[in-house]
Amino acid sequence: MSTETDAAGETPQSEKKKEMRAIVLTGFGGLKAVRVLNKPEPTAGPGDVIIRVMACGLNFQDLMARQGALDAPPRIPFIMGFECAGVVEAVARDDGKLKVGDRVVAFTDYKAWAELVPVREDCVFRIPDKMTFHDAAAIAMNFCVAYILLFELGNLSPHKSILLHSAGGGVGHAVVQLSRTVEDVKIIGIASQGKHDALQGLKIDNLIERGTDYTVEVRKICPDGVDIVLDCLCGEDSGRGYSLLKPMGKYILYGTGNVVTGETKSIFSAARSWWHVDKYSPLKLFDENKSLCGFNLRHLMYRQDNAQYVAEIFSKIVKLWEEGVVKPVIDSTWAYEDVTEAMQKMHDRKNIGKILMDPNEAPKLKPSTPVKGKKSDSEEKKDSEMQDDSEVKEKSAAT
Amino acid sequence: MSTETDAAGETPQSEKKKEMRAIVLTGFGGLKAVRVLNKPEPTAGPGDVIIRVMACGLNFQDLMARQGALDAPPRIPFIMGFECAGVVEAVARDDGKLKVGDRVVAFTDYKAWAELVPVREDCVFRIPDKMTFHDAAAIAMNFCVAYILLFELGNLSPHKSILLHSAGGGVGHAVVQLSRTVEDVKIIGIASQGKHDALQGLKIDNLIERGTDYTVEVRKICPDGVDIVLDCLCGEDSGRGYSLLKPMGKYILYGTGNVVTGETKSIFSAARSWWHVDKYSPLKLFDENKSLCGFNLRHLMYRQDNAQYVAEIFSKIVKLWEEGVVKPVIDSTWAYEDVTEAMQKMHDRKNIGKILMDPNEAPKLKPSTPVKGKKSDSEEKKDSEMQDDSEVKEKSAAT
Repeated sequence: MSTETDAAGETPQSEKKKEMRAIVLTGFGGLKAVRVLNKPEPTAGPGDVIIRVMACGLNFQDLMARQGALDAPPRIPFIMGFECAGVVEAVARDDGKLKVGDRVVAFTDYKAWAELVPVREDCVFRIPDKMTFHDAAAIAMNFCVAYILLFELGNLSPHKSILLHSAGGGVGHAVVQLSRTVEDVKIIGIASQGKHDALQGLKIDNLIERGTDYTVEVRKICPDGVDIVLDCLCGEDSGRGYSLLKPMGKYILYGTGNVVTGETKSIFSAARSWWHVDKYSPLKLFDENKSLCGFNLRHLMYRQDNAQYVAEIFSKIVKLWEEGVVKPVIDSTWAYEDVTEAMQKMHDRKNIGKILMDPNEAPKLKPSTPVKGKKSDSEEKKDSEMQDDSEVKEKSAAT
Repeated sequence: MSTETDAAGETPQSEKKKEMRAIVLTGFGGLKAVRVLNKPEPTAGPGDVIIRVMACGLNFQDLMARQGALDAPPRIPFIMGFECAGVVEAVARDDGKLKVGDRVVAFTDYKAWAELVPVREDCVFRIPDKMTFHDAAAIAMNFCVAYILLFELGNLSPHKSILLHSAGGGVGHAVVQLSRTVEDVKIIGIASQGKHDALQGLKIDNLIERGTDYTVEVRKICPDGVDIVLDCLCGEDSGRGYSLLKPMGKYILYGTGNVVTGETKSIFSAARSWWHVDKYSPLKLFDENKSLCGFNLRHLMYRQDNAQYVAEIFSKIVKLWEEGVVKPVIDSTWAYEDVTEAMQKMHDRKNIGKILMDPNEAPKLKPSTPVKGKKSDSEEKKDSEMQDDSEVKEKSAAT
């Protein structure tokens, strides 16, 4: 993929602004709608700062955004991405807490995958001088989420057990590292078989293969159930996870990866699993001594105006990083122009740790047109899946 | 009420066991079915110890048990009561952790309101020499529950806010005392108007009158809502409490007082409010960053076999008592023969702190037959309410 000029640029030629590269979603659905385009450079609105991006992170949330599966998405086309690290390039007012030149990470409400990003100042946090931008982008969101799940919601204490869906992902690594700060915590991780070897060094006590009936496997390991279930999947799995809780156990839903990555990959079936979640009566929780918790970082910061809470958690993470407790695990770093390959890797659950993108990274050299008839079977399959996704989406949007 | 002989004694005259006094429920419903009877002394089954009771506690749960509103009640007649303090009188085996003569508190599955009580050994905890039996009975259950609500489920930390239903009750006092160990915690308490003066010394930041629209009052005090809602009421209130939660807030249901103490006091309407509790989808919690937690101490210990967990909490409470942080608040102490008066006081929400009973306390002197036509209006009203309750219950049990 090479950078293209935005045919539908909003500014007239006469007062043409400076332009920057950005990863733009031009339509909901498959990978083909994800393109690197030139867009006008942003200016800082009231309360905003502008960040020059040095690294940004890819999350499941981005795959959901691409498919139009997130709530209240912006109108297409829009710049994608929810987190970045970089340098403050401009500020709206000089008396704010941030100055031009500050090294920062930011949790954004879209727009992070560009060369320049406007962000509300309270969602931007300074990073230590010794922390690289790549490390900052790999640490910030994953470890803040993991910290909140374990210590603010899960009340993790010695001798407890955790069932961790998506043990191989970015949050999964963070959960394992932070759990190890507490004495004698047992972690049962679920991960694709292909990741098991790579996860051997991670100190996960038991690894279960994704796609198996994990309830049976967990019962073999912990006959009485587990204390905490960390579920980024939802859909049909929430009842199974809940049933595995010990008394005083906590089921924590923090993401909805299933929407993108269920067995069947079309939006249509995903939407079905989304809505078929069991409802729970507080009286059932009372009888069974169980808790249900939900966590959604973006809603917390942008809908519920609680950035200060996250700032306090991030300062704890920085301290743990300085003590050597928290270590970034980076799977791979990609040029913006290679974003679709990065997305495909996450979609196929092949990443071990965080997938980053760097606007200054040189794109891979690729043949501009594939030689007809030479595609491998798996490549053709992927292409047709992506196509199917967008067709279904367009149909469902039209109805 | 005077002690009566149990007409339906189970043991034949020839091998008659020694007898003891016990508070027996002879039928579900009103106060008239609660009687002090002579019953055979218990013997220690495998895993049990026998405790000679010096004090025992009255809880909302007992009022529910009386009305048949608790799940899976024993067959009537049965000995009531869920907690007591006393001295170990007998043990089933000599190598257990408890010895004859140990001073203890016990959380029982019924049977606590007697002179002698058989209890599973793991539900019996030793108390310090300097702790009186009355203090032990006033502290143990209330403070264990309050500790679990605040620190195991609520994750209470500095600067948080709590909405506390039933601020004037035993658990309410314990919640206030334990909250004061954390910096800058705001407590909004709901209590009957009649208790407000008596609660002035308790360091509750804001008191709201029971029966008012507390959601409006809470919003005036905390426009953004509160961090923790401690609800022992349930029924129609759970939705209102949930709506008052801040993002990252926790709604904790730990009791079902509403079943007994709602506006309408008949069992029938109580059952209705019990079942009309809203259900919640985990996705709603995810969107709103909220948690729902349930806590039921008796289920935890007797159905879910988790007495060890409670033992650990109790040892923390003992430490806090030794440090002077935890102080028992005793409303009143009653003879077994005056149990119905004690129950009526709790029913009318007139107690400030814990209501205790002591088998060695002398009963109040009362006229054995009320002079006809001399009853006050309120006494007549109470009698007819009690009667109504049992009639409705019998009807509903028959259908």
